[in-house]
Amino acid sequence: MQVNTQRYFLEIAYKGTAYHGWQIQQNAVSVQEKLQQALQTVLRQEVETTGAGRTDTGVHATKLYVHVDIPSEKISSPQRFVHALNAILPSDISVQRLLPVHTEAHARFDATSRSYEYHIHLGKNPFLQDASWLLRDMPDVDKMNAAAQLLLGKKDFGCFSKAHTQVFTNICTITEARWVLDGQRLTFHITADRFLRNMVRAIVGTLLEVGLKGKPVEHVAEVIASQDRSQAGASVPACGLYLTQIIYPYIDQPS
Amino acid sequence: MQVNTQRYFLEIAYKGTAYHGWQIQQNAVSVQEKLQQALQTVLRQEVETTGAGRTDTGVHATKLYVHVDIPSEKISSPQRFVHALNAILPSDISVQRLLPVHTEAHARFDATSRSYEYHIHLGKNPFLQDASWLLRDMPDVDKMNAAAQLLLGKKDFGCFSKAHTQVFTNICTITEARWVLDGQRLTFHITADRFLRNMVRAIVGTLLEVGLKGKPVEHVAEVIASQDRSQAGASVPACGLYLTQIIYPYIDQPS
Repeated sequence: MQVNTQRYFLEIAYKGTAYHGWQIQQNAVSVQEKLQQALQTVLRQEVETTGAGRTDTGVHATKLYVHVDIPSEKISSPQRFVHALNAILPSDISVQRLLPVHTEAHARFDATSRSYEYHIHLGKNPFLQDASWLLRDMPDVDKMNAAAQLLLGKKDFGCFSKAHTQVFTNICTITEARWVLDGQRLTFHITADRFLRNMVRAIVGTLLEVGLKGKPVEHVAEVIASQDRSQAGASVPACGLYLTQIIYPYIDQPS
Repeated sequence: MQVNTQRYFLEIAYKGTAYHGWQIQQNAVSVQEKLQQALQTVLRQEVETTGAGRTDTGVHATKLYVHVDIPSEKISSPQRFVHALNAILPSDISVQRLLPVHTEAHARFDATSRSYEYHIHLGKNPFLQDASWLLRDMPDVDKMNAAAQLLLGKKDFGCFSKAHTQVFTNICTITEARWVLDGQRLTFHITADRFLRNMVRAIVGTLLEVGLKGKPVEHVAEVIASQDRSQAGASVPACGLYLTQIIYPYIDQPS
């Protein structure tokens, strides 16, 4: 009997507080493990999933794409399938959409850009404890925005990468890097074709050295030129970091 | 030696998920216990606090007033005192303001109105798991708003009260009762001079019987007239309920 397999993208979201990141691993609870368990319960068969990228422990995602191959006769209604997954998944993981894609579509390799946000709140807020990072003092946002401009373009960002990671190149193209202040909440928006491990949290830490600790705007350019991680600022905590968008040539984004 | 004692109002906020409500009690963790511990650590003396009212297990407050008497020489800077309390309090409880009041001011008896919000979200959202109640189906909001109008005024609301509570009267005056829909988030706003135990959650449950289960708008008037708890709808979960405002004749509210 021939089985027709269809490749799908799952669009998911999760609050990362309780998880050791996206990627499945020994002796630690991951989002991928929870998602695969839910898929296997609904489909009654083993499945493998491939995510757009790993996220670190405690990092959140409002949008992450995952690809998975499923025998086409097992999904009669995508809505009902998504509903069944959500009923099984824990309350901190949700599936938003199920999208049929072509056989070769790849959640990781086909992504042309990714966006992150880093959320900061000023003044203690009991409702943001796992969702944002508490900063005691208000940084100079205009100065941090001037410094953020120096990140834009195609550069070697090895200075912001975790040491000993196995990548062929540290070159990334950053197309968006800006701070938005809204009352007591401060958000950093960044978009690039790719990110190195720990890159966003190291960038935020470096910009805060400009905004809070008196480093000049040009400090950011010097750090990048140094290609030396020890020149960059300390990484800010995971609780404020959100993966918010991934773009593929063949996936329409709801406006 | 004479000690001059000053009465203060503390304006606090808390995420109620981890607490058995505001009020101190045996064998259960309460917000009041945590606040008193923090006060005693900062002041190095025993203190007693009186809150504006109890909240149930899991209910949140974005604003609750508490009165406390403190020897005036112990507070040189209100800002520093608030900062010290916030540094000691857990991340899900915060103190917003410390306000000197007259000696007879009473956080519970002097309140002239209280406001609550009930937060509902439609569609699973990993970031709202403890902060809002997930409703699977969209209710008829216009119909629920028409029914909410029937709550307004001075009435006996015994139908919405937990049984066996020791109150002299079930008469309350409701001055605001309305639903606001914003995308996938639905919020019920209610203000009254006083509330009975469990009242807001029973009112929301009753309005949802109108909005979701086909009961007519007039059902609400019939339930109130019955003065019978068994006629009202089931109480909705605590996770969506927020105490948001308390008005005193002598406390200015920041606009």
